[in-house]
Amino acid sequence: MVKKVKAALLIIGDEILSGRTKDANLNYLATWLTDIGVILDEVRVIPDVAERIVDNVNDCRAKFDYLFTTGGIGPTHDDITAENVAKAFGVDISVHDQAKQLLADAMGTDYLTPARLKMAMIPHGASLIKNPVSAAPGFQIENVFVLAGIPVVMQSMLLDIENRITGGSKILSRAIHVFAGESTFADILVEIENCYNHLSIGSYPFYKAGSYGATFIVRSPLENELNQAFVELGNRIQEKGYEFHEGEAP
Amino acid sequence: MVKKVKAALLIIGDEILSGRTKDANLNYLATWLTDIGVILDEVRVIPDVAERIVDNVNDCRAKFDYLFTTGGIGPTHDDITAENVAKAFGVDISVHDQAKQLLADAMGTDYLTPARLKMAMIPHGASLIKNPVSAAPGFQIENVFVLAGIPVVMQSMLLDIENRITGGSKILSRAIHVFAGESTFADILVEIENCYNHLSIGSYPFYKAGSYGATFIVRSPLENELNQAFVELGNRIQEKGYEFHEGEAP
Repeated sequence: MVKKVKAALLIIGDEILSGRTKDANLNYLATWLTDIGVILDEVRVIPDVAERIVDNVNDCRAKFDYLFTTGGIGPTHDDITAENVAKAFGVDISVHDQAKQLLADAMGTDYLTPARLKMAMIPHGASLIKNPVSAAPGFQIENVFVLAGIPVVMQSMLLDIENRITGGSKILSRAIHVFAGESTFADILVEIENCYNHLSIGSYPFYKAGSYGATFIVRSPLENELNQAFVELGNRIQEKGYEFHEGEAP
Repeated sequence: MVKKVKAALLIIGDEILSGRTKDANLNYLATWLTDIGVILDEVRVIPDVAERIVDNVNDCRAKFDYLFTTGGIGPTHDDITAENVAKAFGVDISVHDQAKQLLADAMGTDYLTPARLKMAMIPHGASLIKNPVSAAPGFQIENVFVLAGIPVVMQSMLLDIENRITGGSKILSRAIHVFAGESTFADILVEIENCYNHLSIGSYPFYKAGSYGATFIVRSPLENELNQAFVELGNRIQEKGYEFHEGEAP
C-alpha cells in the first residue's frame, strides 16, 4: 500500500516578497520532509497582513495533512503570526507560563519587557516547540506547526517536531544523466511513466562546462517499480545511440 | 496619489517542492518588480498537476493586476504549463507559426521533432515573449506572463516584458541598523508607523561577527514621509541611549 501524506508551507513575511531577504526555509524544509516521507505539496509566500494569514492558515490546514508556517513570531509590531493563527482557530491567546519561563531562564527576568513577553504569547490549546538557539518557542496547534523565520532557528525547531509527524511512504528516487537535449528522449519518458502505477519521471535540462544535457529523476514509493523503470530507461537511451550515467549531472 | 499595482508569482515544478532544485526566480523577480513599482503580493509553488495549474492561474489572475508563472514550458511530458494556461482561459492551443520559426531559425528545421514542436504550442490570443538564450519563447495572455523556469532564461525574458507592465508608485526605503535586540525598540517602531498614512517599518534581527542587532527598513511611496519618519526613528533610538547607523547591517 502506498500512503501519501501531504504538507503545505506558509512563508509569512514582507521581506521575502520585496526581494530584500532570500528565503532559505523552503528548500531546507522540502528536503527534510521528503526524507521523512511527507510530500511538500504547496508553498505560499504572503505578506504580514492579518486576514491573509487567517485565510491561508484555514485553507491550508483543511487541505493538507500538515501545515508549517515560518516567520512573524518575534517581538515587534510586524510579528503578527501567533495572534492570527489563534484567530484562524477561533481560540484566545495569552502569555504561556512555560514559554515565559523559557525566556526568563535564557535571558533573565529583567529581559522580560512587555514587548518581549509577546514572544511568550501562545494560542490556547497549543503545545510549545523548543528553540535551542534563541529560546523563544514556536508552537503546534492541531496539524499546524508555527516556526521561526530565521533559518538557523527554524532548523533547530525541526528537531523537536520530527517525532510528532507521521510520514507516509517514502518516495525513492534514482537519477540518470545524458549529454543530449531532453527533447530527444521525450517520447521514451512518457511511455515508461505510463507503464507504472506510482512512477514519475522528471526531466531537468542542464548546461555545464560547455555541454548541454539532461538529468532524469525516476521516482516511486515502490523499490521494485523504481529499479525496473530505471533499467528500462537506460536501455531505451542506449537504443537511441546515447550513453547514460547514473547519478546527477557532473 | 499613491497607486498600488500588485502581482503574484506561480512557481510550477515538482523539483522545487521535493527539494531537489533550489528556486532562484522568486528573489530575482521580487527585486525586479519592486524596481518598476509593482508589489509582489503573493507567491505560490505548486506541483506539475493540471488542475492545480488551472485553478491557481484563474484564482491569481482575478485577484492580482499581474500574474507571472515560471516553469513547465519545455519539451517533455512533465511540461504542462502552456496547455493548462490555455485551459484556464478556455482557449485552444496549437503550434504558433512565429514560435516555430524562432525555433527553426535557432536550431535548424531538422531539429523540429514532434516533441520539440511542443515548445511552439501557444494558447490562442497570446503574444510571444522572446527568449534570447535558448529561443523557445514564453507568452503573455491578458495579464498573465508565462516564463521559463531556468533562471538565466527567465531573466532574459523579462527584458521583453518590462514595457508591457504599468507599475504603480515606487516604494522607497531607507535602512537603519543598531547593535541591540529589536525588542528594545518595539514600542518606537509601532508609534512611528502609526503616525503616517503610507509608512511601514520592517524589523529584521541579525547575528553577525559575535554581535546581535537589528535592521529597521522604513518604507513609503512618499519621499517626504519616508525622510521625516527616518529622522524621527534615529532620534528616538538615540533617546534610548543607542547609536544607530544608516544602511544595512555590516
